[in-house]
Amino acid sequence: MARKLVVTVDSCVLTDAHRAAISAAAAANGFSAEFYDNDAAGLAAASDAEVLFGSSAMLAAAASHLKWMCTPSAGVGHLTAPGTFASHEAVLSNSSGAYGVTIAEHILLVILTMLRRQPAYNEIVSRRAWTRDLAVRSIKNSRVTLLGTGDIGRTAAARLRAFEPACLIGMNRSGRPAGDNFDRIITEKNLDSVLKETDILIMALPGTAQTAHILSKDRLAALPDSALIVNVGRGSAIDRTALEQELRAGRLMAALDVFEQEPLPEDDSLWTCPGLLITPHVAGNMTLAYTADRIVQLFLEDFENYCAGRPILRQVDRQLGY
Amino acid sequence: MARKLVVTVDSCVLTDAHRAAISAAAAANGFSAEFYDNDAAGLAAASDAEVLFGSSAMLAAAASHLKWMCTPSAGVGHLTAPGTFASHEAVLSNSSGAYGVTIAEHILLVILTMLRRQPAYNEIVSRRAWTRDLAVRSIKNSRVTLLGTGDIGRTAAARLRAFEPACLIGMNRSGRPAGDNFDRIITEKNLDSVLKETDILIMALPGTAQTAHILSKDRLAALPDSALIVNVGRGSAIDRTALEQELRAGRLMAALDVFEQEPLPEDDSLWTCPGLLITPHVAGNMTLAYTADRIVQLFLEDFENYCAGRPILRQVDRQLGY
Repeated sequence: MARKLVVTVDSCVLTDAHRAAISAAAAANGFSAEFYDNDAAGLAAASDAEVLFGSSAMLAAAASHLKWMCTPSAGVGHLTAPGTFASHEAVLSNSSGAYGVTIAEHILLVILTMLRRQPAYNEIVSRRAWTRDLAVRSIKNSRVTLLGTGDIGRTAAARLRAFEPACLIGMNRSGRPAGDNFDRIITEKNLDSVLKETDILIMALPGTAQTAHILSKDRLAALPDSALIVNVGRGSAIDRTALEQELRAGRLMAALDVFEQEPLPEDDSLWTCPGLLITPHVAGNMTLAYTADRIVQLFLEDFENYCAGRPILRQVDRQLGY
Repeated sequence: MARKLVVTVDSCVLTDAHRAAISAAAAANGFSAEFYDNDAAGLAAASDAEVLFGSSAMLAAAASHLKWMCTPSAGVGHLTAPGTFASHEAVLSNSSGAYGVTIAEHILLVILTMLRRQPAYNEIVSRRAWTRDLAVRSIKNSRVTLLGTGDIGRTAAARLRAFEPACLIGMNRSGRPAGDNFDRIITEKNLDSVLKETDILIMALPGTAQTAHILSKDRLAALPDSALIVNVGRGSAIDRTALEQELRAGRLMAALDVFEQEPLPEDDSLWTCPGLLITPHVAGNMTLAYTADRIVQLFLEDFENYCAGRPILRQVDRQLGY
């Protein structure tokens, strides 16, 4: 019996060319590839899969013969709890490296939207008015701090650098360098002092125990007046009650793509909060063809590694959570 | 009697520090500086001014002893008609070099807004809905063409380059190189063939006889399906009837900051045109503090040149129109 690869990546993400490439790689390595429209549809097939290319914890729980699961997302918070995997020898990898481009473009979009008062100009234009005198701000000469220096943080930093910020500081767990685009890398122990001199704070952190409410009430209070906060990581990273107070006081601005509860409940008070741009978790959407191409490309790269007995490049440390 | 410098730059643009710096430079060179809230308020004072720092053709017509007028804008279309200046020896200069940063940020804002479907997401969020599956596009791997390679074009190119477009082609009158960020510089004679392979067309051209309707009906038709047109130069550069037809057919998208008639009349059909983002001529607003600082800095630089008998760096060729 052929070894089995079960692919449950949403059928609207994968093109025929993607399926053909995956099938060919599978066949070349003695696998049969089975494609399902989504995780739920592939659940029964997962039971005797050796390799899974899909998202949900349901699949992990059903795949008792699993050796490797690759998720098409970057975040793996839903797959790291003890007991998630039925198979004790299962290795988990993610698609970190596929989302930097699209999330960086989202970051620049929302920063420029907020600094240049585009929500107010949208309202003006909706009335066919010609008001032009709103005070605007620039990334040029702004002090920018980026929490998280993985693929997303680095790709955003490369784009931000071209806008000539006054400084661009990155924070990560180890303090290790993260490419040429940061002026300085700090760890959390220096965060408080850096926040006092941050005009634009970008949060691209994984959802882990260490990052929960990392932007606390005190740290929000440390930010200078009119600072802008952009969150594309996980909603849990911000004390949202404290943030909402700052926004309602008109002291800070924010652009949030992620929330502790998603979808954001219809009666949530954030919907009417001033100085806040809400987007419905779209920064890293796979509806960008480039992202879908990268997800498949990265999977195939690690599939060849797996079949050849080499280490899987994007293996996740389930203890660390990324 | 002291030589006279009349400053009519809008009083909301100039800070006290700007006025102090201008007054000090004037005094150091044997000038007295007079400040007025706007062009109209300074009209009477212009009659015996040697130097004007202001915008309007009224001033030019009133200043019969004028030797130099510096306008705080980049565009000078309103000052180039024969007979505009009462004084035959008057030299005109502009503030080219002050607007690149703010207009480049506008360009990136509207490109990302349109490629990432932000108008549709704004509407979704206004209904508190959580739709996330709109197909989006990226600057990465897009073919970008920039008409105009002056300060605005070059500053935009430096930022666009960081987003890794497939190619970045500039067009200018001479075909001369324009910095490191363009893959290639063309002149208008190659424009037709380049437009066929342009996903994002950015227009940052001065309003001259040569640029009027440079984006003609035929050239609009040459653009590939779904191409995006951004205009931050002058409205006259586009055949708007032809553009509106393409937009209403759903074949192209556009973000227009400039129009042949401004304010755009309340009954103009563009207000309801699909696939179009309208902004009320805000790309180069002086409401950005950095822009105001640069305008004053560039004026002072050329004021020193003028007083020392050196050439004025930003002198405009009134025949060419820029």
